[in-house]
Amino acid sequence: MIVVMRSNATEEELNAVLTRIQEHGLKGRVTYGEERNIVGVIGAAIPPTLREELERFPGVQEAVRITRPYKLAAREFHPHDTIVQVGDLVIGGGSFIVIAGPCAVESEEQIMTTAFAVREAGAHMLRGGAFKPRSSPYTFRGLGEEGLRLLAQARAETGLPIVTEVMTPTDVELVARYADVLQIGARNMQNFQLLEEVGRSGKPALLKRGMSATIEEWLLSAEYIIAQGNPNVILCERGIRTFETATRNTMDLNAVALAKRRSHLPVIADPSHGTGKWYLAPPLALASLAAGADGVMLEVHPDPDRATSDGGQSLTCENFAALMPQMTALANVLGRRDARWRR
Amino acid sequence: MIVVMRSNATEEELNAVLTRIQEHGLKGRVTYGEERNIVGVIGAAIPPTLREELERFPGVQEAVRITRPYKLAAREFHPHDTIVQVGDLVIGGGSFIVIAGPCAVESEEQIMTTAFAVREAGAHMLRGGAFKPRSSPYTFRGLGEEGLRLLAQARAETGLPIVTEVMTPTDVELVARYADVLQIGARNMQNFQLLEEVGRSGKPALLKRGMSATIEEWLLSAEYIIAQGNPNVILCERGIRTFETATRNTMDLNAVALAKRRSHLPVIADPSHGTGKWYLAPPLALASLAAGADGVMLEVHPDPDRATSDGGQSLTCENFAALMPQMTALANVLGRRDARWRR
Amino acid sequence: MIVVMRSNATEEELNAVLTRIQEHGLKGRVTYGEERNIVGVIGAAIPPTLREELERFPGVQEAVRITRPYKLAAREFHPHDTIVQVGDLVIGGGSFIVIAGPCAVESEEQIMTTAFAVREAGAHMLRGGAFKPRSSPYTFRGLGEEGLRLLAQARAETGLPIVTEVMTPTDVELVARYADVLQIGARNMQNFQLLEEVGRSGKPALLKRGMSATIEEWLLSAEYIIAQGNPNVILCERGIRTFETATRNTMDLNAVALAKRRSHLPVIADPSHGTGKWYLAPPLALASLAAGADGVMLEVHPDPDRATSDGGQSLTCENFAALMPQMTALANVLGRRDARWRR
Amino acid sequence: MIVVMRSNATEEELNAVLTRIQEHGLKGRVTYGEERNIVGVIGAAIPPTLREELERFPGVQEAVRITRPYKLAAREFHPHDTIVQVGDLVIGGGSFIVIAGPCAVESEEQIMTTAFAVREAGAHMLRGGAFKPRSSPYTFRGLGEEGLRLLAQARAETGLPIVTEVMTPTDVELVARYADVLQIGARNMQNFQLLEEVGRSGKPALLKRGMSATIEEWLLSAEYIIAQGNPNVILCERGIRTFETATRNTMDLNAVALAKRRSHLPVIADPSHGTGKWYLAPPLALASLAAGADGVMLEVHPDPDRATSDGGQSLTCENFAALMPQMTALANVLGRRDARWRR
Repeated sequence: MIVVMRSNATEEELNAVLTRIQEHGLKGRVTYGEERNIVGVIGAAIPPTLREELERFPGVQEAVRITRPYKLAAREFHPHDTIVQVGDLVIGGGSFIVIAGPCAVESEEQIMTTAFAVREAGAHMLRGGAFKPRSSPYTFRGLGEEGLRLLAQARAETGLPIVTEVMTPTDVELVARYADVLQIGARNMQNFQLLEEVGRSGKPALLKRGMSATIEEWLLSAEYIIAQGNPNVILCERGIRTFETATRNTMDLNAVALAKRRSHLPVIADPSHGTGKWYLAPPLALASLAAGADGVMLEVHPDPDRATSDGGQSLTCENFAALMPQMTALANVLGRRDARWRR
Repeated sequence: MIVVMRSNATEEELNAVLTRIQEHGLKGRVTYGEERNIVGVIGAAIPPTLREELERFPGVQEAVRITRPYKLAAREFHPHDTIVQVGDLVIGGGSFIVIAGPCAVESEEQIMTTAFAVREAGAHMLRGGAFKPRSSPYTFRGLGEEGLRLLAQARAETGLPIVTEVMTPTDVELVARYADVLQIGARNMQNFQLLEEVGRSGKPALLKRGMSATIEEWLLSAEYIIAQGNPNVILCERGIRTFETATRNTMDLNAVALAKRRSHLPVIADPSHGTGKWYLAPPLALASLAAGADGVMLEVHPDPDRATSDGGQSLTCENFAALMPQMTALANVLGRRDARWRR
Repeated sequence: MIVVMRSNATEEELNAVLTRIQEHGLKGRVTYGEERNIVGVIGAAIPPTLREELERFPGVQEAVRITRPYKLAAREFHPHDTIVQVGDLVIGGGSFIVIAGPCAVESEEQIMTTAFAVREAGAHMLRGGAFKPRSSPYTFRGLGEEGLRLLAQARAETGLPIVTEVMTPTDVELVARYADVLQIGARNMQNFQLLEEVGRSGKPALLKRGMSATIEEWLLSAEYIIAQGNPNVILCERGIRTFETATRNTMDLNAVALAKRRSHLPVIADPSHGTGKWYLAPPLALASLAAGADGVMLEVHPDPDRATSDGGQSLTCENFAALMPQMTALANVLGRRDARWRR
Repeated sequence: MIVVMRSNATEEELNAVLTRIQEHGLKGRVTYGEERNIVGVIGAAIPPTLREELERFPGVQEAVRITRPYKLAAREFHPHDTIVQVGDLVIGGGSFIVIAGPCAVESEEQIMTTAFAVREAGAHMLRGGAFKPRSSPYTFRGLGEEGLRLLAQARAETGLPIVTEVMTPTDVELVARYADVLQIGARNMQNFQLLEEVGRSGKPALLKRGMSATIEEWLLSAEYIIAQGNPNVILCERGIRTFETATRNTMDLNAVALAKRRSHLPVIADPSHGTGKWYLAPPLALASLAAGADGVMLEVHPDPDRATSDGGQSLTCENFAALMPQMTALANVLGRRDARWRR
């Protein structure tokens, strides 16, 4: 940490800062500048609240943190790509995975039709919501455990592993009994009890970025999961909230490229939520891949205009089947391996 | 709902839309325009997903919702101010309440000192966190139940009712045993199970606006609580996330004035989180009051530069004591009653 | 400036940074930390591009600027409030000014009616646009010089000084012939030729904050004007663009309070544009005053529902007359002087 | 336009709305709903201010515009791609163009070295700033006309057409004498006099999206240029301002895909400004192409760590040479033609 003194700070003010730094068992080294002085804080265990603490001192202009607040998720301390294994699939490390399925599980027929269609088209994993977070209390909120059973049945019949959302800590055990990967939704990215419970479950986690979360906060939330002994975290960019209203969210592909650089975790992208429009999902799926994403997650529904939720952003099975070969061709040019390939 | 057809939509496309509207038991009335036609959808029970459904139809440019999605929280259907009673205090309906206390309960001495100081200065209610949501897993996360006990002790000794945050549905019962008002934090504004559990608790709820939540989403979250039979919801603006980084958040006082107009619920403001800087809290507290807020919530700490969290935004007891008479003078000019006054 | 080295930076990488710093005639002082080293850059004339330059060096994690980039606008180097004098009026330094008038000058009758009405109600200055920036080429763009003549006539008949917008450098001379204060609109906050031309005109400038400008950028734009020898700059907060769409902009009163602290320039607020709704302008005008603004600028129109622009955010003359005594009462409680009082 | 009445609006209030609509020479058709009534406004020439006008009427909840405010830039009225011809190059219509060069022209040696290097690597056009908009008055602002002369010399020696920014209406004639394409920067996207002057110049325009401009506003600014009789507008996404600070801007590739759909104009992307980091520019350049961009504009500098501006986001000539074959391979897979191919 660096403490920047004001140009008119007195010697007593500087000394008070140095004394406080020593009280924390740290060392302060002063650099005397022409316009103002700065203090470098040295020590391995700088308390997270030190910045605010020192900024209250008279004579201090600002205190600047110089290390990233996450460690376990940081590439700096773990240079090689983490590879998350789900059954036979490898996620991360140069492969490319496609996860597809409906926003919500609605019926046996709907989920089976979709599961077979997306497998046929080449998808690697099936998604589908049994528990749905909804802004309004008056909208469909999922089939609950019945939805989980239908997902498990779809897996049994198609062989596709399943990923589904868990919304509250007490449901983790239940959802983990059915799912291969536990999804933490954007609205729950900072539901810290949920993060820890998923961490303890031992199941791979798919952690969506909160719609107004910074990349740093996203990686800190991953840190919560990893800190419970679970390194199998897949990050998922799904669009952020900005001033632009022509699209539901603003897909942040800078974040995909930067998260890949700052962290060793695999990063995938969800262009269905990221755009909110089915006709924008294909170009943004291709763009995500080109930006370096380790995979994409797409909403696919056999009859989107009768879907109980998010129909406007779902691809039909036909649209999805048309998109798959484009993604594969692009992946080949980019030198990516299919997620089913052996390492 | 209004369905806007494209300028080149065919008659079959228009008829397909009308047919689908009828399948939902609704009526569609066409207005034939010079450039394009529009369809008004008539009926009491328009499904929340109808908009997305119709926007997928060929020939449809867009579908526009014309009613607000919340009812119980809407002033349109409940013109008079809701007044939330907490002990002898009345919140809403022209009164003005001041809630003060530390970000986190840290020790008996800290909370007792603060409680007596803020009561002495004129505060009506005591705040303090026992369970703290923190972005990083490496920071202080509260004393838990011990913190609740200390809050209860502070209430017993000072007579001030207490408000404290509850973070997860399974803790609602525990926290409700100690607290007078249950706070739902910004990060949990869309933790729907928590909203419902707080709704069922029967305790008044203080619902903070999520840091990237629209006013409509905020009122929908209030709707979740009220729908459980609990009308005692206090809305709290605490700053939104914008591009500006000179302040921690951007206090949105437009939202205070607009929420008062769109909803009958009391609305208070939290300038400590809204600014993130102790020296900006006083002017913004006064501004909140002038904008129509029914009260303010302020962080006060006897020794902010040694606080375990958010010290940089806490007022000292002396700063708070200096601010109270300014707020009272302003409230008088604005014709507000003290929250202790009988109705 | 502080240069933070990576934890694994080599000694050669550190030396390369030090060498480059010396090439600029500056000194670099290394603080050797336990996890990483940092370099403090010392010297009076640090080039503005040094930060980017050093961040490209291998082994550098980031470079952090520790001084504010503006000087002439900074309170740090000019502790006392700047007071802008316009005729008999004083703006800044504890006074409070009310500027009122229509969005655009439309006709002699309209501007005269408004001018007399706002003077009667107590306004200090008249506003009105002769040149209007409009997003669409198909909307009314002002009367041009005829509008300026009508404003001058309104000043002659009412005695109110006038403020009006200038949109392009070549118009500065023309507008300065008529106006008492030259307004630079939000869209032109970074039209640097315009800033300099207004700086050279010698007329007081009213500088609106750009709708996505940071406070720092706003003060840098003020710096452009002052650097031409014109210290008479009035800052005007008019709402920023955020994700919230229920209001036209989000009024940022944090910025009013912070700009007052960081700069010595007077700061006023424009709640008409800041909210975009006439019924939100009064509460936000009061809030601006309470937050510390040196004045407000309000849109007033004798017949807003027939206005050629921004009618939805204009107060009627009656609404404005009802608001003035509330503002005056609040200003009294806050200890503010009327802008007409002698210093 | 649709006017939505309040649920409790009276018949007089409804009639007042209908009367006003008739006064404008338009027709109003009422749809009587169960909860509220709506009025469709019919007519070819709806005034742009009608929405605000009607929203002030008692009994009106809101008025909703149902047509897009731009015509000349809209694909709805011009279904085929506009192709902008610059010398032998075709931009739009399925081709892919690469524009490269330094942020600012600094010296003959710098621009010549860069021009030859980017031509050698395969770039189609040369960029370079002679007039630079800078937030701070203390930074390098370009060589002015000398910079234009150097660009012209680079064109003469390499055969690459040149694009350069023009910042103020009075400079359009000068810059148009040297440049093949006139760039309008993000800060000037709503400098309407400049848009019109560029429109009248007859030269192709490269219109950058403002950093907080909606897609609609961007297309409206294009409308200003086209309305002067100049259809040769190239749109350029260059990142928007959001809450995320880890990157300089947030590249909005949704906007690229959506602008291609809503408008017939070519759309290119600038990942150098869109990310602000040289190491993120390559993945985002590839992503832009995959999202449907008709080209990319990249900053390339022979010695970025000594650049006078934006060095941190510039590629070296070697980095650029390494990126070109990746872009070409991707373009081939996507079925794009090189911009030099004959139509």
